[in-house]
Amino acid sequence: MSDYTISINGQFVEERDANISVLDHGFLFGDSIYEVVRTVNGKLFAADRHLKRLHNSANSLEMPLQQSDEWYLDRWRDLHAKRASGESYLRIIITRGVGPLSLDYTQCEKQNVIGIAKPLNKWPDEDYAHGCKVVLAEVRRNAKQATDPAIKSGNYLNNVLALKEARAAGATEAIMLNVQGHITEATTSNVFFVKDGVVKTPALKEGLLEGVTRGFILQVCKDLGLTCEEGVFTRDELLNADEVFITGTTRDVMPVGYIGREKIKFTPGSLTIKIANAYHDVLHDPKNQM
Amino acid sequence: MSDYTISINGQFVEERDANISVLDHGFLFGDSIYEVVRTVNGKLFAADRHLKRLHNSANSLEMPLQQSDEWYLDRWRDLHAKRASGESYLRIIITRGVGPLSLDYTQCEKQNVIGIAKPLNKWPDEDYAHGCKVVLAEVRRNAKQATDPAIKSGNYLNNVLALKEARAAGATEAIMLNVQGHITEATTSNVFFVKDGVVKTPALKEGLLEGVTRGFILQVCKDLGLTCEEGVFTRDELLNADEVFITGTTRDVMPVGYIGREKIKFTPGSLTIKIANAYHDVLHDPKNQM
Repeated sequence: MSDYTISINGQFVEERDANISVLDHGFLFGDSIYEVVRTVNGKLFAADRHLKRLHNSANSLEMPLQQSDEWYLDRWRDLHAKRASGESYLRIIITRGVGPLSLDYTQCEKQNVIGIAKPLNKWPDEDYAHGCKVVLAEVRRNAKQATDPAIKSGNYLNNVLALKEARAAGATEAIMLNVQGHITEATTSNVFFVKDGVVKTPALKEGLLEGVTRGFILQVCKDLGLTCEEGVFTRDELLNADEVFITGTTRDVMPVGYIGREKIKFTPGSLTIKIANAYHDVLHDPKNQM
Repeated sequence: MSDYTISINGQFVEERDANISVLDHGFLFGDSIYEVVRTVNGKLFAADRHLKRLHNSANSLEMPLQQSDEWYLDRWRDLHAKRASGESYLRIIITRGVGPLSLDYTQCEKQNVIGIAKPLNKWPDEDYAHGCKVVLAEVRRNAKQATDPAIKSGNYLNNVLALKEARAAGATEAIMLNVQGHITEATTSNVFFVKDGVVKTPALKEGLLEGVTRGFILQVCKDLGLTCEEGVFTRDELLNADEVFITGTTRDVMPVGYIGREKIKFTPGSLTIKIANAYHDVLHDPKNQM
């Protein structure tokens, strides 16, 4: 039996019927955008922030959303309600729609909206207790001036190739450098590290997704009275950190225990634990649930 | 009535039934590869070279082709035969296949093969007689170390965004620079220019697709006794050229008459015309048709 609950343009469909035209530009060119919302206590977590980012992605691609904000929120809610048990991972993809076989999308009229829900990922306890294993990918992150990683789109080969490297090394994630050799982000998470009591994370201008969890962590650091610096950091600064952690919608705050190939070990540090605990409170704060 | 002839895994389907699962990684992540072959006199032109490049794309993505070379050639031939009239544009897309909703593709077992045929594009005579209009795109070309443009994949947003700039300026193509500011290629064509009798085109290491037409043009120059230099060229070298032309499977050799925004005019020059004529012979040489 399938783990997926799927809707197309607001209608639920069986997995075997969950199809899209091969002339949809989302299929032909990866010309689509998406967001993943998770539930906490059966409610959408931070859906307002995901919706805001969805608009940002849409605007960057000159693809204004064709439905109201409430309509997209209802799609997320419907998907979760249909699943009926446990917490959900709720992905909504919006494609450019069907159009002529050409890079020119001006004749694509109607966007298609695909909803796919599954049980919320459960990452190994071990990864939280002792830190997960990551690699520094050989493949570089797309440049902000090219395919901007701030756009959450259907062009994900860059990340697919980086994750392949992680998998080959038995790691859960791959941290990517940009062409200049600066740290950017991992394939589906943002990267933070701690050095001499200061929390550091790559600045948005380095080319990375403005993670919703990343945004909460910046606030959490401020609330805890910690200095958090968004800046330009090299591979060596990461490798020489005191603590490293990654953040994301399904991982929350996950300490890094090992960076492969370079064979650098970390133990989940006191600031990582403090931040993870504070984020746990954010996650369960009813004002972030809708 | 539809202009498209479509097959899925070797079976012809009506356009309304030409669908693919939303769980196919080709749809979710643009995790697919493709090639476009054109016909000349009803025969596949240079299909051996396209097939070779298809293998290169597949190998770069660790996605070895699951059918024999002859099987893919037969798909191109069948699509053309089904169309029954005129010359054809024959696109074959090979996806990673259906798998779990994860960047990890190791559980995608069966690739899907989509064939889409349409009448071969007819570009305006004017563009050949007086030169076409192009722009220099603001958006930069993906870096070779990131999403390598040498892989002909379903990740085409970079090109979609560049073509949007061309369209906004009433131009037919957009020439892209890499992050270093060097010329790479246009969205669906390669770029050549002539300066002081020497033909020049960006080297593959700058990050571009190794165009099949580009390869023929390099050979044509050699046969004509012309010096053709593959190198590193700046925007200014292009703007100060004596002649500029673009090449591609559907455009053949198309002179550039105008570079927008910068307002630089060119007239189709003697070397461009000489090369275009020689390429016409290559196109009609039976040994390149199969």
